[in-house]
Amino acid sequence: MKKITIAAILGIASLSLTSNAFAQVKPEDQIKYRKAAYSFASWNMGKIKANLEGTYDAAQVKAAANAIAAVAHSGLGALYGPGTEKAIGEQKTTVKPELFQKTAEVAKLAGDFAAASDELVIAADSGSAAAVKTAHGKAGATCKACHDEFRVR
Amino acid sequence: MKKITIAAILGIASLSLTSNAFAQVKPEDQIKYRKAAYSFASWNMGKIKANLEGTYDAAQVKAAANAIAAVAHSGLGALYGPGTEKAIGEQKTTVKPELFQKTAEVAKLAGDFAAASDELVIAADSGSAAAVKTAHGKAGATCKACHDEFRVR
Repeated sequence: MKKITIAAILGIASLSLTSNAFAQVKPEDQIKYRKAAYSFASWNMGKIKANLEGTYDAAQVKAAANAIAAVAHSGLGALYGPGTEKAIGEQKTTVKPELFQKTAEVAKLAGDFAAASDELVIAADSGSAAAVKTAHGKAGATCKACHDEFRVR
Repeated sequence: MKKITIAAILGIASLSLTSNAFAQVKPEDQIKYRKAAYSFASWNMGKIKANLEGTYDAAQVKAAANAIAAVAHSGLGALYGPGTEKAIGEQKTTVKPELFQKTAEVAKLAGDFAAASDELVIAADSGSAAAVKTAHGKAGATCKACHDEFRVR
């Protein structure tokens, strides 16, 4: 039986992975980079929220939406390789070990995040704050869905 | 005399900043997010390098180039606010204090990074590995230029 890794599943959900790119990144750096990716996305989600609650700057919202979509389509699956289920030295992780087992569910969640980020880009490009508000809410829900299931609280 | 902050300068070089988005982020989170942004960009630079040295996956290179450009255009200047010149608690920083003084030079470097990232996207979209190699080298040089000048070694 062919073993399907979580990296492959997440890769399929967003981007194909070349084995070279996968092999290049040490496990501790995989944890570092995946945390960086989500943190960068989080900052951009927060910027959009601030724009919706304050002065709406269409250019800033477009850039932030592009940033979130870039994260969602960056092939994050490559950062969940073997050995990254728990902390490595100073690189802590809040991932639950179940993420590495429940591949179908993770693929669904990753796909939902990617699709929601694409909708957010379309909404941002439209210049409609109302459309962005809806899309931002949907994108945030896809973040939360994965956190609720696979992040240690 | 009107005081121009580094955040404003970097904002001009990449994106306009709304004061609300600037005010929302605590100084320690500014440090966290800027480190995350550069780390995410670095991972994507590495992916392109791996593609150039191994099997070239055009879709992965395009996604990585988009990710780097998304970082460059994300308005990083907002993450260099007052109080972020040095570590805050556990949030270390390798920025040199001079970055907060040499605003014109920083604006030039930030502009160079943004322009190089745009060229990298164009090269990636062309599907030409040779064009990507050249653009990747140029983009890397803009990273290094800032590190050499403003990062503690």
